Amino acid sequence: MTDPDATWTVERVEQLRLATRTFIRETVIQLEPPPGAHLGEELRALVQAQAREAGVFAPQVPVEFGGLGLPIEHWSPIFQEAGYSPLGPVALNCMAPDEGNMHMLGQIASPEQKQRFLGPLGRGEMRSCFGMTEPHPGAGSDPEALRTTAERVDGGWRIVGEKRFSSGAVGAGVAVVMARTEHEGVSGATMFLVDMDAPGVRVGEQPHAIDRAIIGGHPHLHFEGVTVSDDRVLGAVGEGFRYAQVRLGPARLTHCMRWLGLARRAQDTALDRTAKRRVFGSPVDELGIAQGLIADSVIDIETSDAIIAKTARLLARDQRAGTALSSVAKVHCSEAVNRVIDRAVQLVGGDGVTEQLPLASYLNEVRPFRIYDGSNETQRWAISRRASRARAREVAAGEPERDTLRAAEQA
Amino acid sequence: MTDPDATWTVERVEQLRLATRTFIRETVIQLEPPPGAHLGEELRALVQAQAREAGVFAPQVPVEFGGLGLPIEHWSPIFQEAGYSPLGPVALNCMAPDEGNMHMLGQIASPEQKQRFLGPLGRGEMRSCFGMTEPHPGAGSDPEALRTTAERVDGGWRIVGEKRFSSGAVGAGVAVVMARTEHEGVSGATMFLVDMDAPGVRVGEQPHAIDRAIIGGHPHLHFEGVTVSDDRVLGAVGEGFRYAQVRLGPARLTHCMRWLGLARRAQDTALDRTAKRRVFGSPVDELGIAQGLIADSVIDIETSDAIIAKTARLLARDQRAGTALSSVAKVHCSEAVNRVIDRAVQLVGGDGVTEQLPLASYLNEVRPFRIYDGSNETQRWAISRRASRARAREVAAGEPERDTLRAAEQA
Amino acid sequence: MTDPDATWTVERVEQLRLATRTFIRETVIQLEPPPGAHLGEELRALVQAQAREAGVFAPQVPVEFGGLGLPIEHWSPIFQEAGYSPLGPVALNCMAPDEGNMHMLGQIASPEQKQRFLGPLGRGEMRSCFGMTEPHPGAGSDPEALRTTAERVDGGWRIVGEKRFSSGAVGAGVAVVMARTEHEGVSGATMFLVDMDAPGVRVGEQPHAIDRAIIGGHPHLHFEGVTVSDDRVLGAVGEGFRYAQVRLGPARLTHCMRWLGLARRAQDTALDRTAKRRVFGSPVDELGIAQGLIADSVIDIETSDAIIAKTARLLARDQRAGTALSSVAKVHCSEAVNRVIDRAVQLVGGDGVTEQLPLASYLNEVRPFRIYDGSNETQRWAISRRASRARAREVAAGEPERDTLRAAEQA
Amino acid sequence: MTDPDATWTVERVEQLRLATRTFIRETVIQLEPPPGAHLGEELRALVQAQAREAGVFAPQVPVEFGGLGLPIEHWSPIFQEAGYSPLGPVALNCMAPDEGNMHMLGQIASPEQKQRFLGPLGRGEMRSCFGMTEPHPGAGSDPEALRTTAERVDGGWRIVGEKRFSSGAVGAGVAVVMARTEHEGVSGATMFLVDMDAPGVRVGEQPHAIDRAIIGGHPHLHFEGVTVSDDRVLGAVGEGFRYAQVRLGPARLTHCMRWLGLARRAQDTALDRTAKRRVFGSPVDELGIAQGLIADSVIDIETSDAIIAKTARLLARDQRAGTALSSVAKVHCSEAVNRVIDRAVQLVGGDGVTEQLPLASYLNEVRPFRIYDGSNETQRWAISRRASRARAREVAAGEPERDTLRAAEQA
Repeated sequence: MTDPDATWTVERVEQLRLATRTFIRETVIQLEPPPGAHLGEELRALVQAQAREAGVFAPQVPVEFGGLGLPIEHWSPIFQEAGYSPLGPVALNCMAPDEGNMHMLGQIASPEQKQRFLGPLGRGEMRSCFGMTEPHPGAGSDPEALRTTAERVDGGWRIVGEKRFSSGAVGAGVAVVMARTEHEGVSGATMFLVDMDAPGVRVGEQPHAIDRAIIGGHPHLHFEGVTVSDDRVLGAVGEGFRYAQVRLGPARLTHCMRWLGLARRAQDTALDRTAKRRVFGSPVDELGIAQGLIADSVIDIETSDAIIAKTARLLARDQRAGTALSSVAKVHCSEAVNRVIDRAVQLVGGDGVTEQLPLASYLNEVRPFRIYDGSNETQRWAISRRASRARAREVAAGEPERDTLRAAEQA
Repeated sequence: MTDPDATWTVERVEQLRLATRTFIRETVIQLEPPPGAHLGEELRALVQAQAREAGVFAPQVPVEFGGLGLPIEHWSPIFQEAGYSPLGPVALNCMAPDEGNMHMLGQIASPEQKQRFLGPLGRGEMRSCFGMTEPHPGAGSDPEALRTTAERVDGGWRIVGEKRFSSGAVGAGVAVVMARTEHEGVSGATMFLVDMDAPGVRVGEQPHAIDRAIIGGHPHLHFEGVTVSDDRVLGAVGEGFRYAQVRLGPARLTHCMRWLGLARRAQDTALDRTAKRRVFGSPVDELGIAQGLIADSVIDIETSDAIIAKTARLLARDQRAGTALSSVAKVHCSEAVNRVIDRAVQLVGGDGVTEQLPLASYLNEVRPFRIYDGSNETQRWAISRRASRARAREVAAGEPERDTLRAAEQA
Repeated sequence: MTDPDATWTVERVEQLRLATRTFIRETVIQLEPPPGAHLGEELRALVQAQAREAGVFAPQVPVEFGGLGLPIEHWSPIFQEAGYSPLGPVALNCMAPDEGNMHMLGQIASPEQKQRFLGPLGRGEMRSCFGMTEPHPGAGSDPEALRTTAERVDGGWRIVGEKRFSSGAVGAGVAVVMARTEHEGVSGATMFLVDMDAPGVRVGEQPHAIDRAIIGGHPHLHFEGVTVSDDRVLGAVGEGFRYAQVRLGPARLTHCMRWLGLARRAQDTALDRTAKRRVFGSPVDELGIAQGLIADSVIDIETSDAIIAKTARLLARDQRAGTALSSVAKVHCSEAVNRVIDRAVQLVGGDGVTEQLPLASYLNEVRPFRIYDGSNETQRWAISRRASRARAREVAAGEPERDTLRAAEQA
Repeated sequence: MTDPDATWTVERVEQLRLATRTFIRETVIQLEPPPGAHLGEELRALVQAQAREAGVFAPQVPVEFGGLGLPIEHWSPIFQEAGYSPLGPVALNCMAPDEGNMHMLGQIASPEQKQRFLGPLGRGEMRSCFGMTEPHPGAGSDPEALRTTAERVDGGWRIVGEKRFSSGAVGAGVAVVMARTEHEGVSGATMFLVDMDAPGVRVGEQPHAIDRAIIGGHPHLHFEGVTVSDDRVLGAVGEGFRYAQVRLGPARLTHCMRWLGLARRAQDTALDRTAKRRVFGSPVDELGIAQGLIADSVIDIETSDAIIAKTARLLARDQRAGTALSSVAKVHCSEAVNRVIDRAVQLVGGDGVTEQLPLASYLNEVRPFRIYDGSNETQRWAISRRASRARAREVAAGEPERDTLRAAEQA
C-alpha cells in the first residue's frame, strides 16, 4: 500500500496552490458579497460546486471522504490562497468550524461515525458546530468551569446545559458537544455528536458578531435534556479535554493560515493604491513613512508564514509540542494580521474607511480572532507558564542557573 | 464691559462639567441608538432640546449666538464628558463639522454673515458642512492640488468643482467651500459660504463610511456652476489656506477631546466587566496580563488629556504654535483612543465583538480619525519637518551642533 | 508677609529657564566627562560654584536654605534645561537622591534637623543618600517586606539591617534610613537621619551599575547596630511609609523632568546629524522612514512634557492624587525617554554606537529609570488597581455599569 | 562521489547541536570575561583549541579547509547554541566578520586564493576584516557612493582610499577591500584580497564601539597607495557589488542566529530569576505583568527562529530570493533580540542594570546590529520597494488591481 503522504511532492503541492490561486482570483472574488453582508447557504453551494469542478475542493479532507488528502504540513500555502477571499475557505470547505471538526473526527471518530458524519461534512452536504464555550460563569477559555452535564441513562446519555458562541450552529446538521460526565467514579469531560434536530436541542439568542464570513452565526445553544445513544460518544468517555487539544492546535493554526491570506489581500490592495495615489507630487509608495508601513506589513506577513510552517511541521510529528507552539503562532499571527489590515486602511486613506473597499470590513472580520480559540491574554499566560516550567525542568536536570551574581567591588 | 473669559472661574467650569456629566449619563445614554445605527435628525432635535433645558447646550458658542461662551482652554473637560456618548456632542451642538465651522465663523465672518449663519448654527437650527477634500488627484491633505475653482463674475463668483468626504452635507443648510481663485494676478484659495439649496449644488454619491455618529453622511458634493455674491466670501479673497489653518487646529483638537471621552466610556465598560468576569478562579482585573492592559489604557488616557490641555492653552495664546502642536495631539490621541477601545474589547472577551455591547462599533467610529484632518502619516511628516527646521534655526542662531565627534583612540 | 510663590510669575520662571539654558549650554556641556566616565566630587564642586555665580543654583531649595525657592509647579522647564547635560542636575544641586531628600526634609524635618541637614545639603556642602531598598527577600518595591529594624533603646534607637542600591552613599554625609519599628504595640516603619560616619555604619559591596551620573555609586549599606538619638527620628515614629509617599511623588517626577532634558539633547543630536548626513542622495531628515522616527520622538517629548506639567500642578494642590498620577508620568516618561534616545542612535547610524558621541552612553544612563522608583511593571499593577477601585467606587455610588448586554436577536 | 550534504541527516545535525550545547555551557561560559571587557587573542586561541577537541570547531567551513562542512540550511541550531555565550562564536570560528568572509571566499575565490587564505582562516590561524563602509560622504549602506579606488598599474592594481568600521582589523591577516574600478571603459566595483602588512595599509583611529565581542575593534583603515597583483582580485573585476550580495545574505542571517542564541541566554536568566524572586508574596513568574513579558519574549524567539529557518532554506536553493528575505529576517530578529534582552533586564530588576549580571552588557552588544549590515531603516526602504515592484509586476502580468471602488449609494 502506498503512503498517501508520499504522493504529495513539493511540485504537486505547488500545482494545487496555483490552481487554488487561479480559482480564488478568477472565480471566487467575483462572487464576494458586499462588505458587511453575511454569507448564505446558496452562495456556499454555488462556490463549493465550482471548487469541485476546479479540482481544489476539500484539500485537507481524507480522500475516502471526498477530499484531496493533503497532509497538514502542506496546508498553509493552500489555505492562505483560499483566505485571500473571505469566501474562499467556504468554497474549499476548509472553513471553521467544519474544518476543525472534520480533522478531529478523522482522528478520533469510529468508522461508523465517520461514515455518518465525516462523509457528508467532507462532501459539503452538511455543516457542523462545536459546543464548547459556555455563558458566564461557565467555561470560556477555562475548561474546569464546564457546567453542561451528560448523565448516564439507559443505553446512552442525557445532556443538559447551554453553550454560547456556537459558531455555525444555525443550519448545522450536527454539533460536537462537550459535557461533564461521571464515569467509574471519576469526573471528566466527554464529547458527544448531537444531531441538531434531536429533541431538546434549541438554538437560542443570536448575538450579532462583527464578523460575517461564518455561515450560521454565533448563537447560544440550549440542550434541554437531549438524549443520545452510546454510539454518539466521540472517542472515549472522560477524554473530552484531551480531544479538545487534538482539535485545538490545528484549528488555531488553520485560522492563522486563512487570515494570513486575507492580510495578503489587504497588503495587495494597499500596494495597488499607493502605486497610483500621489501626495505632494510623489506616489505614496515612494514616500518614506508609507514605505515604513509597507515594510512592517511585509515583515508581519513573512514571520507569520514562517511560524505557521514551523508549527505545522511540528504538529505533523509531535502533536503535543505542536499544540503548545500553536499558541505562539496564534498570538503572533492574530496580532500581525490585524496590524497588516490596519496599515492597509491607513495607506489607502479615506476610501479605506468606506464600504467602497472591503478593508474596513476585514478589520471587523479578523478582530475576533484575538479573542476566540483562547484569548491572546490567556495564551500569553499559558506560553509564559510553559516557558517557566520547561526552564525549571532544565535546571532540575542539572543545567546551571544563569542569574548568579558576580562578586561586586568591595568598599 | 466685563471680560467674558474672566467669568469662567475654575469652579464654574467644574460646575458645567458636572452638569454635562449628569446630563450625558442620565439622559443621553438612554437615547443612544443600537450599535451600527446612524443618528437621525429627529433624535438630534430631541437631545438638543434636552441639553438646552439642562443648561449645557452649545458650551463653546459665543453667548450672543446662543451658547455659553466658554473659552477654548476650558473646552476639554466639557467635550470629554459629551464624548462619553457618541450622541453627546450632537446633543451639546459641539459635534464636527458644525463646531469647527462655527469656531471659524466666529473668528472670520462678517457681522452679517454671523447673523445669517452663526446664529442658526449656534442655536442648532441649521447644520453645515465643510468642502475641502477633493477626489483624486485633487486635494486630500495636500492643498496645493486644489481643483475646485471660483471665477470672478459680475457681482460675485462662479464655483465649479467637486468635493468628497463632505461630512454632514445631506441636510445641511450651508457649505463652507474652498476654491482656487485668481485675484489681482495672484493665484490663491478662497472660502465661500454656499447655501446648500443654491442652484448648481448637487449632493452626489454617498459612500458608506464605517462611522455612524455624524448626521448627514460623507457624500460627494458637486458645484456645477454655482454663483454666489461677494458677501458670501468668508474673510478675504486669497486667504483660504490661512483660514483653513484657523479652523484646523481647534477642529483637530476637539476631535481629540470628544474621542477621548469615548475612550473613557470603553475603559469604564472594561473595568465594569473585569470586576465581575472570572477566569481560572480570579476576577479578571486581578490577573496581571489584564492589569497590564488596563494600566496601558490609563496611561493613554492621561497622556492624551495632558497633551490636549497643553495644546488648548497654547492655541488660546498663540494660534500658530498651537496649530503646530495640534498635529502632535492629533497623532497621539487618535492612536491612543484606538488602543484604549481595542484593549477594552480584548478585556471584555467574546461579548466585546458582538453588538450586544457597543465596543466594537466604537472601533469603527474612531478608526477614521487616524485618517481625516490630515492622516497621521502626513502629520508625522509635518511634525518632523517642523522639528528639523526649528533645530536648523537654532543652529543658525549660534547654538552649537551636538553631533560633533570626540576624537577616537589612535592605533 | 508676602506669599513667596506669588513672586514666581511666568516671566520670572522664563528668565530662570533661559539663564539655566545658557549656563548649561555654554558652561556645563564643556565640562562633561567622556562617555562611560563617572562624575567625581571635584567636578561637582566646580560646576556648583559656577551655577551659583550664574544665579541658577538650587532652584527648588527654599530661600532660607540657599536656594531660589521655586515652587514645584515650575520645576519642570528648569529641570529639563538642567537635564540637557548629564552633569547639569549636579551643577544645579537638583540631582537625585539629594533633591528628593531635601524636598522631604523641607516638608517633614524639625527646625533643628533642617538647620543641621537641609542647610548643608541645600548649599551643596554635603551629600545624602536614601536607605530604602533591601536585598532579597527584603523590600524592593514592596515595603511590607522591610527587614531593617530599629529597636527602642535608652534615649534613642538601635538600627540593624542592610540596604542596597543606596545611591550616592559613598561620600555622603547623611542617610535617610527606613526601618521597621514597634511603637505603642503597633508595628510600622520609621525614618531616621543617620550620620554616615556614625559607628556601625558600613558601606559594603558596590555593584557597578550601568549609569554614571550619580556621584557615590549604588552600594550596599550595613547598619550593624547603629545607635541614634530621638532627635534623629524624621517626623513621627511609625509614619515612615507615609513620608516615603511624600518623597516618592516628586522624586519620581523630577527624574522624568531631568531625563526628558536628556532626551531633548539626544533629539537635537539626531536632528543635527540628519540635516547633514546623506543617504541615496538626500539628507536623512528628508527621508520618510527617518522622518517617522523624528516625529515619534517629538510626540514622545511633547506628551512627556504635558503629563509632567499636569502631575506637577496636581502635586502642588493635592499630594495624594499627584502621587498617584506620578506613577503614570513615571511609566510614560521613562519609556518615552528610552525610545527617544534609542531612535537618536538609529538616526545617527554607526557613530551612534561608538563613544565618539555620547548617545549610546545615554541609553545606559536612562535604562535603570524603568526599574527604580518602583519598576514600571509594579507601577502598571498599581495603576490598574487604582483604576479598578476608583471605578468600583463610582459604581457603588450609583453610577450605572456600562457592560450590560443589549438583548440579542431570538432564533 | 558522495554528495556531502547528504551526510548531514537530521540526526547528525541534532548530535552536533547537542555537542555544541554541552561545549558552550560546560566549557565556554566558564571562560567568559566580565561584562564590559574586550575579548583578546589568547582567549580566542584557548577556546578554539577546546572547540577542536570537542569536535565542534568551524561547523560551517568546508571539510577541506578544516571545518565540518555543514550546509547553510543547518547552521541555525548550531549557531544559536554557539551564540548562547558571547564567546561561543569565536570559539567555534563562526564569528563575524570571518564567517562571512570565509563563506564568500568559498563561493568566489580561486583555488590558489582558497589555499592562501581560506585554509588559515578556516583553521583559525588567521583573522580577516571586510573593508566596505566608508567615512561620510562615502558609502555607508549606499554603495553608489564608493570613494575608494583601485587604479590599473602594471601587473596589478593600486588602491587608495579609507574605510571605517572595519570590524576585526587590528590583528587581522587579510582584508577584503571593495574599491571602484574602471574596466574596459565600464565603471564598477571590485573586491581585492589585501594583506594587512602590505606597504600602504594603515590602521587609523579606533572609535570605541559599545560592543565587545569582536576581536580587533572597528577601526578606520587607510589604503595609501597599496599595490596588489592581479591574483588578488577576488572573482572578476567589476563584480564587487554582486559579490557583496553573495556575502550579505548569509552574513546577515548568521548574525540573526548568533544573537538569537544570546537572546535565549537572556530569557533563561530572566526565567531563573523570576522563579525565585518574590514580589508581594508571589514568585515573579506567577505575576501576570511579568508573564506578559515572558510570553512576548517567547513569541519573539520562536518567530525569529522560524524566519531564520525559512530564509536559510531559501538561501540554499535561491540566493537572490534568499538575500531579499534576509532583509526581513534581519529587521525582525535584530529588533526581537533587543526586546528580549531588554525585557530580561526588566524582569530581573535592579541586578539587571548592574555588572553583576551580564544582561545590560548584552544590550550594548546587540544594539549595533540594528545599524550594521544595512540599517533597519534602509532595510525597510528596500523591503517596501521590493514589495511594490513585485506587486507591480503581478499587475502588469494581468492580475487585477484590488483597490477598485464599489459604486456608492446615489443621493
